[in-house]
Amino acid sequence: MNPMQQPIEIPQGFLFAAGEAGLRTHGSGPDLALAYSTVPARVAALFTINRVKAAPVLVSQDHLKRGGYVAQAIVVNAGNANCATGPAGMHAARQSAQEAAKLLGLRREQVLVASTGVIGVPLDARRITEQLPALARRLHPEGYEAMSRAILTTDTRPKVAGQSLTVSGHPVRIVGMAKGAGMIYPRLATMLAFFFTDAAVEPRFLRSVARRMCEASFNRISVDGDTSTNDTVFLLANGMAGNPTIGVRGAAAEKFTQALVEVAQTVAIELVRDGEGARKLAEIRVEGGASEKQADAVARSIALSSLVKTALAGADPNWGRILSAVGNAGVEFDPARVNIYLNRTRVCRRGGAAAFDEGALQRELQEQSVLIRVVLGEGKAEARFWTCDFTEEYVRINASYRT
Amino acid sequence: MNPMQQPIEIPQGFLFAAGEAGLRTHGSGPDLALAYSTVPARVAALFTINRVKAAPVLVSQDHLKRGGYVAQAIVVNAGNANCATGPAGMHAARQSAQEAAKLLGLRREQVLVASTGVIGVPLDARRITEQLPALARRLHPEGYEAMSRAILTTDTRPKVAGQSLTVSGHPVRIVGMAKGAGMIYPRLATMLAFFFTDAAVEPRFLRSVARRMCEASFNRISVDGDTSTNDTVFLLANGMAGNPTIGVRGAAAEKFTQALVEVAQTVAIELVRDGEGARKLAEIRVEGGASEKQADAVARSIALSSLVKTALAGADPNWGRILSAVGNAGVEFDPARVNIYLNRTRVCRRGGAAAFDEGALQRELQEQSVLIRVVLGEGKAEARFWTCDFTEEYVRINASYRT
Repeated sequence: MNPMQQPIEIPQGFLFAAGEAGLRTHGSGPDLALAYSTVPARVAALFTINRVKAAPVLVSQDHLKRGGYVAQAIVVNAGNANCATGPAGMHAARQSAQEAAKLLGLRREQVLVASTGVIGVPLDARRITEQLPALARRLHPEGYEAMSRAILTTDTRPKVAGQSLTVSGHPVRIVGMAKGAGMIYPRLATMLAFFFTDAAVEPRFLRSVARRMCEASFNRISVDGDTSTNDTVFLLANGMAGNPTIGVRGAAAEKFTQALVEVAQTVAIELVRDGEGARKLAEIRVEGGASEKQADAVARSIALSSLVKTALAGADPNWGRILSAVGNAGVEFDPARVNIYLNRTRVCRRGGAAAFDEGALQRELQEQSVLIRVVLGEGKAEARFWTCDFTEEYVRINASYRT
Repeated sequence: MNPMQQPIEIPQGFLFAAGEAGLRTHGSGPDLALAYSTVPARVAALFTINRVKAAPVLVSQDHLKRGGYVAQAIVVNAGNANCATGPAGMHAARQSAQEAAKLLGLRREQVLVASTGVIGVPLDARRITEQLPALARRLHPEGYEAMSRAILTTDTRPKVAGQSLTVSGHPVRIVGMAKGAGMIYPRLATMLAFFFTDAAVEPRFLRSVARRMCEASFNRISVDGDTSTNDTVFLLANGMAGNPTIGVRGAAAEKFTQALVEVAQTVAIELVRDGEGARKLAEIRVEGGASEKQADAVARSIALSSLVKTALAGADPNWGRILSAVGNAGVEFDPARVNIYLNRTRVCRRGGAAAFDEGALQRELQEQSVLIRVVLGEGKAEARFWTCDFTEEYVRINASYRT
């Protein structure tokens, strides 16, 4: 099943709108979006681990704490990250939330904010507050598509996915959207992802499922290995599906988790596929690990290696670089047990060269998707990771002067 | 003082030779070298931390242990890394050492080996053993230059540096050479560095000074963040200068350490400057750290950021990326205290934008050397690191198919 190809059912009680606030320094187009739940929604949130945090991250963290992790709206803008902007930046973020709260009849703590765009440029909050009334008027379930476009920066296309499932006989819907993996555009700061569901869930379950979702999706992708100052993931659950509240244990929890993870993985993989300069998606699958931690470290090391990523760009079945990346993972293993496969072809047998048809494999590696499978031969643990190729185009875009 | 511009004095009792064994898969030219000390030399060695270790690394480790960290010769080849080559590769490395030992009248354990070149291709030891007699005949103090060329792979020029100093009235000489930082050429595995001195030193001092040397030089440079399977540093001290043996403490230790560190830094910086596709050298200087560990982590994070390195390629005074890399260093600090300078221009003031002439600075950043100075404002600790810009040429070279 490919959720991208299914018509997306919007969770009940969620409305969206987008508009143009003139915040983009390059080009024009929608750059402001508003998401609204007609009833209070429980929120789970994950933020960047970068020690430099943008104002909207700090303000949202504050609002969530003060509002008891219940919110009803998100104001998000592209074009300006509102980062490294000092006290004025904090004020601008609060003003945006304040204006949305006023329009929607909420307390300011019930409004979350997120920004993406250039770092270090003052954000003129009036551009946002002046647009918000028009957005509030246009709020609509189908507005999610406009929102998914308004949050983009160097992305070439929106990333949206959805799933519907039944929980104790009640239809429940999940929709997710995201933008920009990789701190890609000059001074740009970057990954935002929003998930909305009408499922009724216990707060403790929401927190744990959000962590599991990120762990299985956004924490397993890499474009350039950088963690931006603005990364934000919000998961809002407003309970309007009327299902018996999903707790931490049981079949419903299992089913909902699986659906949410699938939605998040779909969106995350689209982020990689649309990574800057990327022409190719590589799935890295590590099998036969002694522990999940070991398998994970190996998959991550391969995904972050510039040399593996440039080899991918060149359609080069360069197993030596992959083996070396395994060796750089910082975990113990026996190189003589390692087998490496590119798609279905074994290229490394017990840590040494395997016989294979290089020409045929090189042609195969020109396809848009490649599977790098590493079998450690140590145990039964597995891990997956997604990365893209590292092209001259990536360097060209990132080395081009901003103005 | 620039040691590169001084005539180099060769330490007494060291002889070198190079020749062609036909190991290079691309092009031809010298690819085999032999270094010899006429008397037993104490050895300190540092090897790759990659879990996948090439055969010459494993054989040298074994020889050092069995020979009590005393050796008299090094056999080094380029063109073939003798890595991921199984038991046959181990045999080939031992054979090379064995043949050199026979020619020079040594025990096999007194011969060290090092290789660099493609991974996963069987090494034909006969090509080496057949050339060794000619090399043994040609051994000469001035052969160090030929050796410094024979060990190169994608390097565009040899890296050699030397210093002479006086220890208790005795002239003492140090010479160092290195090749290839970055696992640059397809399947290539990579950094080798050899240091020779005629100083008499205590074994304990030799070990500690070798660690300090690497810590201050090779551990502070980065081309692409990868650690190869073959990285090897040998430091040989044969005592022929006749100085009173240098122990761990005292003015002589201090003086010798400083000279050795300078030689190693000169060679290491040349490695970065000659990094694949590199057009620019950046020195990263972190000041005002709360601890050396913190300053170090910050310098390293900046040096490894693909985004900082592409901005360098584009002569873009992109302080947002530098600040974000500081935030990604995994250490605590107050962003509002951070000042960032590019050369002498302050580009970030207390964590926010500083006013500066962008056009003038951009022109300045087109020079071949750039200083990135980050003042944390937390304490007095400092750290330095060297990196190069990340160009389209790097991707082009690494994405090109091997054959």
